[in-house]
Amino acid sequence: METIRRCAERAKEVSRRLQGAPVELRNRALQAMADELLRREDEIVSANRKDLKNARAIGLSPPLIKRLGYDRERIGESIQSILSLVSMEDPVGRVLARTELDEGLILEKVTCPIGVVGVIFESRPDALVQISSLCLKSGNAVLLKGGSEAKETNKVLAVAMKEAVESVDRRFEDAIQLLSTREEFRHLLDLDDFVDLLIPRGSNELVRSIKDSTRIPVLGHASGVCHTYVDRDADIDMAVRVCYDAKVQYPAVCNAMETLLVHKDIASDFLPRVASRYERAGVELRGDAETRKLVRASPATEEDWFREYNDLVLNVRIVSALEEAIDHINKYGSHHTDAIITRNDAVAKRFMDDVDSASVMWNCSTRFADGYRYGLGAEVGISTNKTHARGPVGLEGLVIYKYRLSGRGHVVSDYVGAKARSFTHRELP
Amino acid sequence: METIRRCAERAKEVSRRLQGAPVELRNRALQAMADELLRREDEIVSANRKDLKNARAIGLSPPLIKRLGYDRERIGESIQSILSLVSMEDPVGRVLARTELDEGLILEKVTCPIGVVGVIFESRPDALVQISSLCLKSGNAVLLKGGSEAKETNKVLAVAMKEAVESVDRRFEDAIQLLSTREEFRHLLDLDDFVDLLIPRGSNELVRSIKDSTRIPVLGHASGVCHTYVDRDADIDMAVRVCYDAKVQYPAVCNAMETLLVHKDIASDFLPRVASRYERAGVELRGDAETRKLVRASPATEEDWFREYNDLVLNVRIVSALEEAIDHINKYGSHHTDAIITRNDAVAKRFMDDVDSASVMWNCSTRFADGYRYGLGAEVGISTNKTHARGPVGLEGLVIYKYRLSGRGHVVSDYVGAKARSFTHRELP
Repeated sequence: METIRRCAERAKEVSRRLQGAPVELRNRALQAMADELLRREDEIVSANRKDLKNARAIGLSPPLIKRLGYDRERIGESIQSILSLVSMEDPVGRVLARTELDEGLILEKVTCPIGVVGVIFESRPDALVQISSLCLKSGNAVLLKGGSEAKETNKVLAVAMKEAVESVDRRFEDAIQLLSTREEFRHLLDLDDFVDLLIPRGSNELVRSIKDSTRIPVLGHASGVCHTYVDRDADIDMAVRVCYDAKVQYPAVCNAMETLLVHKDIASDFLPRVASRYERAGVELRGDAETRKLVRASPATEEDWFREYNDLVLNVRIVSALEEAIDHINKYGSHHTDAIITRNDAVAKRFMDDVDSASVMWNCSTRFADGYRYGLGAEVGISTNKTHARGPVGLEGLVIYKYRLSGRGHVVSDYVGAKARSFTHRELP
Repeated sequence: METIRRCAERAKEVSRRLQGAPVELRNRALQAMADELLRREDEIVSANRKDLKNARAIGLSPPLIKRLGYDRERIGESIQSILSLVSMEDPVGRVLARTELDEGLILEKVTCPIGVVGVIFESRPDALVQISSLCLKSGNAVLLKGGSEAKETNKVLAVAMKEAVESVDRRFEDAIQLLSTREEFRHLLDLDDFVDLLIPRGSNELVRSIKDSTRIPVLGHASGVCHTYVDRDADIDMAVRVCYDAKVQYPAVCNAMETLLVHKDIASDFLPRVASRYERAGVELRGDAETRKLVRASPATEEDWFREYNDLVLNVRIVSALEEAIDHINKYGSHHTDAIITRNDAVAKRFMDDVDSASVMWNCSTRFADGYRYGLGAEVGISTNKTHARGPVGLEGLVIYKYRLSGRGHVVSDYVGAKARSFTHRELP
């Protein structure tokens, strides 16, 4: 595994050069990436055909095979998303605060790249392009490990990315490196001297097992057990429309609703109406005893309340107060995205204050929790962490800041003792 | 260890109530803390005498005994620091961004408490008061483990803190809890469902061993191996003054300089002058071969360059270019605080861009890297992390943000397909 150590060391070296690289250079490298993808289109498509053929041979499931596909249309989408990154504001070098500590002693808090990012992702080859371009825009070096089912496609893509960054500046040749095995990635987890952040894009089990085996910070995402609470003051038409969207519009994703909570005073009006729409969409309901008096549903077990179905299945529970809804969400939820439907401002505020989730929503669908919809541009992932970056994470999750202090020979001994100078601590524009 | 799990669960419950607690309530609890410290002054001083007596009996070293002392004067300082927290701006509820996603669909990114913080600290009892008050101001519940040598003092302080928060609202009674043994703290490391952030305030070994044994994010601080690079364009008088301050003013702390790097073109003018001042202050020099031709120094070994002396010992190395200084710092340093002395703006910029440290400084002493001097108020610690919070960390390191999205029944299905609405993504004031 000495080779992985060398990869990580080289990534660190490049990341130091990227720290100071002007945005024009980083943008030129992104442009070169887009050009290289176009130039190698045939090669990429034919590598992808090999992966697809192997996937069918080993009997990979149709949804996975669908995600694995990377045709001309999808390559075109990747190119578009790189070009939109080029036009985005530089996340590096933003002055977050400027303070005069004393005359001529000026402190600036300025954003800068994190350094070296390790990413492990599954099947979708476009993830490789997306993450490489996000890392490059934000001045980070990246070590990538893709799914073995996309091996051939990823190999070609990694060469394309590498040649693109090299073409702009030879010193950047190791800014994007592809690891070939899971064992190599496992080894990377020990290299906290070189790797500054890990981003696993995969199952909860993957995220958890990575957090268990490393000192490196992990930008992870637990499951998406999202709730909608229909308050007694809800507009019933709105509640039906929003709850339908949150469950049915695209159930396979983490921001889809898994549990519907309904205030008892509105349940007999609301539940039968939403249930008949769900029935037509083929949604299976699992309910508590009170729910089952009002609509057809199988009994929900204690484990069901913790479940992320990612499918047309929905838990339903009737609660007798706002607090009960909040407690349910904080206990069974995954702190991802939870919504309330109500006309009552105070109740909405209370819900949004007390529900401890990355996104809290009022009178709209949980499905809006997404980097693109939030206007963040391309998304690194959705984080349920309580530090660094939370919720949909865009470029800003790939930068940190440093303090830059400039003086004129200032020394600390002037600020201690009997004749001590005092600090001005004046905020500057 | 079932009891620790209960402690952590209760902390989580309280933290949920603290999420929505208005700042007036949190400030009243801080005021009650200050009052309680004053009221119990005699009790605290007498408990501290017991600790001091035990410490002398077991032969604790004089500097440690000094740090353990908590007399009326220090209690007064703690009270002052609590009162200054009361007057500080609320770190919770700050709107970081407000975006219109579409007509009537408004997204806000708002700061909020992290939740439950676990803190382990050594000897100094004032740390208990400082951390409890910082956590309370920022709306976090805290589980504390102090050093066993301060056992008696910590016990009284913990009761005082607890009664203070209870007096304001009974539901806050478990906002501040003291753990009694290191085993209890070890057990806490497994409870990532309840604890959101760990802050070890102690040795590098402690920080590293905690990072090794938990999934919970750690706000840690490696050693402080700080450098000053005296460029060939340095003002020599200034360089002498600043380098003297950085090493001698208070050598026992993490932001003191451990290694001096000098450009070869200025070495024969600068080094003898600074060395004679160091000699008078009793600083022992360890140098590379070139340095030893100019001043009296013992040979520096490869390990010395990595060392944090925290004492009147200094490594000196002569470099032939800016790049060599930068590479030395990035390789041997601890990414804490590093300074350059030069009159050349372009050289300074290059240094500050490329040195990968939490604080980079130009023409001033590394000793300025400190929360108080930076104007952040009380300090949680100095972080060498590359995520979440870096450098001196004040209250802002104890908050994160959540997204609050308010609509009027908006659903995602309106934004897909042929007649899709588009997002406005308009930044609002």
